[in-house]
Amino acid sequence: MNECQDFRHSISLTGDRPTGPLHLGHYVGSLKTRLSLQDTCSKQFIMLADLQAMVNENMGMSTIKSYINEVVKDYISVGLSPDKNVIFTQSKITPLHEIITYYNTLITLSHLHHNPTIKQEMEDRATHAGTHQHCVSNNDHNMSINMHFLLHPVSQAADITAFNADVVPVGHDQLPLIHLANDIVDKFNIKFGQTLKNVKPILSNTPRLSGIDGRAKASKSLNNAIFLSDTTDIVKKKVHSMYTDPDHIHVSQPGKIEGNVVFEYLTAFYPNQEHIDELKQNYTRGGLGDMFLKNMLFKTLEDFLGPIRERRAQVTDEHVSAILDTGSQIAFDIAQSTLERIKNSMLL
Amino acid sequence: MNECQDFRHSISLTGDRPTGPLHLGHYVGSLKTRLSLQDTCSKQFIMLADLQAMVNENMGMSTIKSYINEVVKDYISVGLSPDKNVIFTQSKITPLHEIITYYNTLITLSHLHHNPTIKQEMEDRATHAGTHQHCVSNNDHNMSINMHFLLHPVSQAADITAFNADVVPVGHDQLPLIHLANDIVDKFNIKFGQTLKNVKPILSNTPRLSGIDGRAKASKSLNNAIFLSDTTDIVKKKVHSMYTDPDHIHVSQPGKIEGNVVFEYLTAFYPNQEHIDELKQNYTRGGLGDMFLKNMLFKTLEDFLGPIRERRAQVTDEHVSAILDTGSQIAFDIAQSTLERIKNSMLL
Repeated sequence: MNECQDFRHSISLTGDRPTGPLHLGHYVGSLKTRLSLQDTCSKQFIMLADLQAMVNENMGMSTIKSYINEVVKDYISVGLSPDKNVIFTQSKITPLHEIITYYNTLITLSHLHHNPTIKQEMEDRATHAGTHQHCVSNNDHNMSINMHFLLHPVSQAADITAFNADVVPVGHDQLPLIHLANDIVDKFNIKFGQTLKNVKPILSNTPRLSGIDGRAKASKSLNNAIFLSDTTDIVKKKVHSMYTDPDHIHVSQPGKIEGNVVFEYLTAFYPNQEHIDELKQNYTRGGLGDMFLKNMLFKTLEDFLGPIRERRAQVTDEHVSAILDTGSQIAFDIAQSTLERIKNSMLL
Repeated sequence: MNECQDFRHSISLTGDRPTGPLHLGHYVGSLKTRLSLQDTCSKQFIMLADLQAMVNENMGMSTIKSYINEVVKDYISVGLSPDKNVIFTQSKITPLHEIITYYNTLITLSHLHHNPTIKQEMEDRATHAGTHQHCVSNNDHNMSINMHFLLHPVSQAADITAFNADVVPVGHDQLPLIHLANDIVDKFNIKFGQTLKNVKPILSNTPRLSGIDGRAKASKSLNNAIFLSDTTDIVKKKVHSMYTDPDHIHVSQPGKIEGNVVFEYLTAFYPNQEHIDELKQNYTRGGLGDMFLKNMLFKTLEDFLGPIRERRAQVTDEHVSAILDTGSQIAFDIAQSTLERIKNSMLL
């Protein structure tokens, strides 16, 4: 984050779907950026997108609420400060719904249908459903899309604009959502006069962290992630079960670095990267055992997770409630004032 | 309305898009039913759907606001009482937007796309646009549909359920919208427990009143309607320009009843239908002139419009504002309490 200085007067918006506790992949992929932004931005909004979680994962609200509690504890325990960030729950920000209605007047079905992010998710669903229904065409799958899901890009445009965000940290795959938000902003300003501002993406260069089983994605449902809240015993067990090089049977044999999850995690978390580079050379040459590396990774993760666990132990459920109440009230007031600005421009 | 007694404990919901002053076609097609329902229902909600007007007709809010003022004067002048009806503006009922979000989670794009009412309107638009763009397929036109327009059936489901409506007077073409609303109600109750009630359509048997030029539809944009607010001079001019039987040149000739707008309006407004039947026989036989009938219709309409004009003269803009403020506050509170019931069931 060398570009930190650029954000001194910027408002940032990020968030998570509270569909499970956060894991090391979340840390590398987004929490690290947020820790940097909380010190460099004028304000950072962190949204718990419970309404999105409800639909996308078809989860009940009682489950989602318990995950919200865990995720906020994750935030605090990694060092995100409730004083520097507005941490809030999406469902409490009721002005967002009305903003969505007005944005819907500015776009067509085609805008959403052809949005690459939505398209990709629809194709993923089609592929998934395809294992059961071979005769259903791709187009039929598009039609079976849930309306709340289809409207996700509009909902995201409402989130971004409601809190006056200047910057949004995103991955490359989410860029089209930022483009659509800016498209809505432009259309609104042209039709009703200058009211809303455009947003800039902060592109993250961090590659996704693989699952401990070597799969590209680490997730709760795949049970292949190391959670920020995992105990020492569980971390030990998970590290020792990690996918390395299946052909590297004897210590003396040369091992492969590519696809080796232990090296991937060491690269992400070990403080001295020169040392890692040496180890990689040794491993490729042969003579370096997986057990040595796994013990080293376990120690590295314990050094990283230790202070996180300590901070976590200090955070009570009541503390989480108070953080969310305060944050949601601040976020509500700002969204409400944006809504009023929008309605004024529309002469409503 | 012989079935009036059935509605003693029922709440009714009706409304208009305020896209112009109301005309005789509105009276025959809906105001007459509302006059009956205001005495037979426990409560009648009459909604001025300004948000729908804004998108569907691409009208500015200042124009829509002036039409709202005219339409409420039309209501009062035909005898709809602000004491018996809750007359309100849709855009003031902000809880509706949040209800729409939750209903969107229950339906798919297919539900909306295949809804015959939406389908018909999409085809009408495609036909209309087709005069300019010959190469665009019908499917592409579907994709160019405005999202707010596509969501109209969800918005209507929110309206119906928000005010706890038991009955909605509709034409045959709107039945699929009622079906979708009930579908959403059923899905919600199954998923979150019994919360919402189903609605019954009151089917109107009244045929649409033709335009004075003989076109099937009377409308402001076609300039072929007699408005409730038209002056005596204008009514006279419009009646005398009415489409009759173009082949009926001399009084002695036999004339055609079918498509003869003067007879259509006489049938709708003349108090003695036996007399009209006799006149029809005379006209078909020959010997009855258009001028005689037009004078008779003019007198009939003047008898009908006279008291309406008198009541209208009593209604000030301030009176209209007060009616809408009171009605919108009542409607808001009921919609808010429905929203709270919905959120309780969803554990939100």
